[in-house]
Amino acid sequence: MNLKELEKEIISKKSFLCLGLDTDINLIPKHLLNHDDPVYQFNKSLVDRLSKKIVAVKINTAFYEARGSSGWISLERTIKYIRNNHPKLFTIADAKRADIGNTSSMYAKAFFEEMDFHSITLSPYMGYDSVTEFLKYKNKFVILLSLTSNPSSNDFQLKNDLYLNIISESQKWQHSKRIMYVAGATKPEYLSNIRKLNEDCFLLIPGIGSQGGKMEEVIEKTTKKNKRVLINISRAIIYAHSGINYLDSAEEVVNLYNNKIIIE
Amino acid sequence: MNLKELEKEIISKKSFLCLGLDTDINLIPKHLLNHDDPVYQFNKSLVDRLSKKIVAVKINTAFYEARGSSGWISLERTIKYIRNNHPKLFTIADAKRADIGNTSSMYAKAFFEEMDFHSITLSPYMGYDSVTEFLKYKNKFVILLSLTSNPSSNDFQLKNDLYLNIISESQKWQHSKRIMYVAGATKPEYLSNIRKLNEDCFLLIPGIGSQGGKMEEVIEKTTKKNKRVLINISRAIIYAHSGINYLDSAEEVVNLYNNKIIIE
Repeated sequence: MNLKELEKEIISKKSFLCLGLDTDINLIPKHLLNHDDPVYQFNKSLVDRLSKKIVAVKINTAFYEARGSSGWISLERTIKYIRNNHPKLFTIADAKRADIGNTSSMYAKAFFEEMDFHSITLSPYMGYDSVTEFLKYKNKFVILLSLTSNPSSNDFQLKNDLYLNIISESQKWQHSKRIMYVAGATKPEYLSNIRKLNEDCFLLIPGIGSQGGKMEEVIEKTTKKNKRVLINISRAIIYAHSGINYLDSAEEVVNLYNNKIIIE
Repeated sequence: MNLKELEKEIISKKSFLCLGLDTDINLIPKHLLNHDDPVYQFNKSLVDRLSKKIVAVKINTAFYEARGSSGWISLERTIKYIRNNHPKLFTIADAKRADIGNTSSMYAKAFFEEMDFHSITLSPYMGYDSVTEFLKYKNKFVILLSLTSNPSSNDFQLKNDLYLNIISESQKWQHSKRIMYVAGATKPEYLSNIRKLNEDCFLLIPGIGSQGGKMEEVIEKTTKKNKRVLINISRAIIYAHSGINYLDSAEEVVNLYNNKIIIE
């Protein structure tokens, strides 16, 4: 899948939604705990129910690592199921990795070869040679942190416009067409600066839903020229209901968010 | 283990060495491939042989994730073995994680509870609230990236002295006594700046060995007031010999490095 195809999916589904599978085994409906791999079962059921109304799935590795190797197995099963059964969903490993070159090549192998994700989130702190091993893969994408959605993103990202500098510097790198950026919805005033700097790049926008960012405002500020935005929502969808009707509730929340979007 | 105890170990063993287990199954001696878990077997044998001549072990998660869930099992077995059999070795998960608060708490659970590492490397890019979940643990430590050893650390870390700003800002955080810093040996001129800014903090220093940093110069610049330095060496030790005598060769390299250190 390339970015033009992803943009087409957004327009045809009339949805910017990325489903965030921040799946915590302690928070999923109790009746699923009878399955041999409840986290996988929960993820699979959500993706099957919602696949026509979302364009992407983001899997946050922390929630799987917290369960050790058995969590890693749930992660592998989930991505394999999605890639085999929902090939048009854009998949994101929300891993926020990056390391020196020879180490980054191992992470790239893990996420792009072993697990065949379309993309991975990376921290830009270590610079070009920590990212380039990921950029070598054709039809794979790097999503670089620019402005994150947490309150402490003020601490370093906003000083000396580091969040913008990350974008302008990384756009000079080889294969920069394969770079997308994380731009949080919780500081909408800065989203305009990002769009002013780069009209064409794809943005992954977290922070709507449980974190308080506003959908309409974000869409207004980021989609003037094109529809290159993914809006991630995790907890507000996957934990919309804690009981047996969790899929109905999840779909209702997805409908609510999709109805706020007007794509001409 | 607390940092005073770690400093005592450094002085009594006359060694700053941290053994970096960047273990790649394709690079270990072929005769180990008969074992059910060759990577674990390789790690175990190295730690058993070298434990009296090193003070710390750093496990780089990328090399384990590249093998999927079976790699994660090797990682779990390795840390468990070290914690049970070599309790005085300071253990580092070289994971370079960090995320929004509720996600960071999952990573903290993975590395500090599930696996009981003493410490973890984190990227500072997302600021205070991405780190604080790790700092809540008593007798556990965060090793924040300040100046990394890769060539591209120039890209963002050296602009506007970001690498120093990371240290001065994070020293204002709650439990800042539990923060150590990564300071690469490949740019020794900047190590002096770091030590000028903070005389007391522990530094984890990568970049000596295969990456070209010089041991004597690094020690001279960073240990004037105290001995709060860990020198990480990975490939130059663990792959010192590719055959059956790999442990002898590894020990020879460790002796060479330790002999370059004069601790009064």
